Amino acid sequence: MKQIEHIGIAVKDIESAGQLFKKLLNTSIYKVEAVESEGVKTAFLQTGPNKIELLEATRADSPISKFIEKRGEGIHHIAFDVEDIEAEMKRLKQEGFVLLNDKPIPGADNKLVCFVHPKSANGVLIELCQNKPGPL
Amino acid sequence: MKQIEHIGIAVKDIESAGQLFKKLLNTSIYKVEAVESEGVKTAFLQTGPNKIELLEATRADSPISKFIEKRGEGIHHIAFDVEDIEAEMKRLKQEGFVLLNDKPIPGADNKLVCFVHPKSANGVLIELCQNKPGPL
Repeated sequence: MKQIEHIGIAVKDIESAGQLFKKLLNTSIYKVEAVESEGVKTAFLQTGPNKIELLEATRADSPISKFIEKRGEGIHHIAFDVEDIEAEMKRLKQEGFVLLNDKPIPGADNKLVCFVHPKSANGVLIELCQNKPGPL
Repeated sequence: MKQIEHIGIAVKDIESAGQLFKKLLNTSIYKVEAVESEGVKTAFLQTGPNKIELLEATRADSPISKFIEKRGEGIHHIAFDVEDIEAEMKRLKQEGFVLLNDKPIPGADNKLVCFVHPKSANGVLIELCQNKPGPL
């Protein structure tokens, strides 16, 4: 794991949360992107080498809807930057962690991602992120 | 805000959580430290420019005991590195954020810290961290 890539924050209204986090971090939103497969709309802010990802559900069965229903708005996951996601998935499985994906899946912000079950990690939802390989 | 300084994670047993996060992050614990005023024992792991701070309560009225009672183990706060904590506190107050401390207080890992009320920030507990000025 190279560093924290981003922190995902579940919010009800990405517009007002975006305004608030812009003020909090004294920076701007550099990207807004929907991830249809996950039922979320995302907005990214940069703070030094790390990002904050705001997540709003776009449908009722989105993991973010369920999270907010159960726990309210707040920190949803920590994503770590990895060099080789398949190698890291293999290493974690061997260490006994439970992965939520068998293979890397497409994530926001040009990433391949995989989630680690929070029951494996003291209640923390962990995401592994690798930059998608670019065109040759 | 310069970058994410650390993510604070509330755990029941810092020994077993430490073993688990060492495996997860493929790194070691570089510091274990009690913060008496907050009723916590902390353990730090480094991942690139960021840290993970594990937090175990040392008494029943610790904020970490209350957090775990209410929500279970998991991510407790995000700490951001700031250059000048008093200036940043002033800026955030002017922006309408509610601070939990009037003045910076001593934190773990040689920091001066201040917390922002989660009600001000979409349910996220934010900590500002400045390195304590060293001896002349």
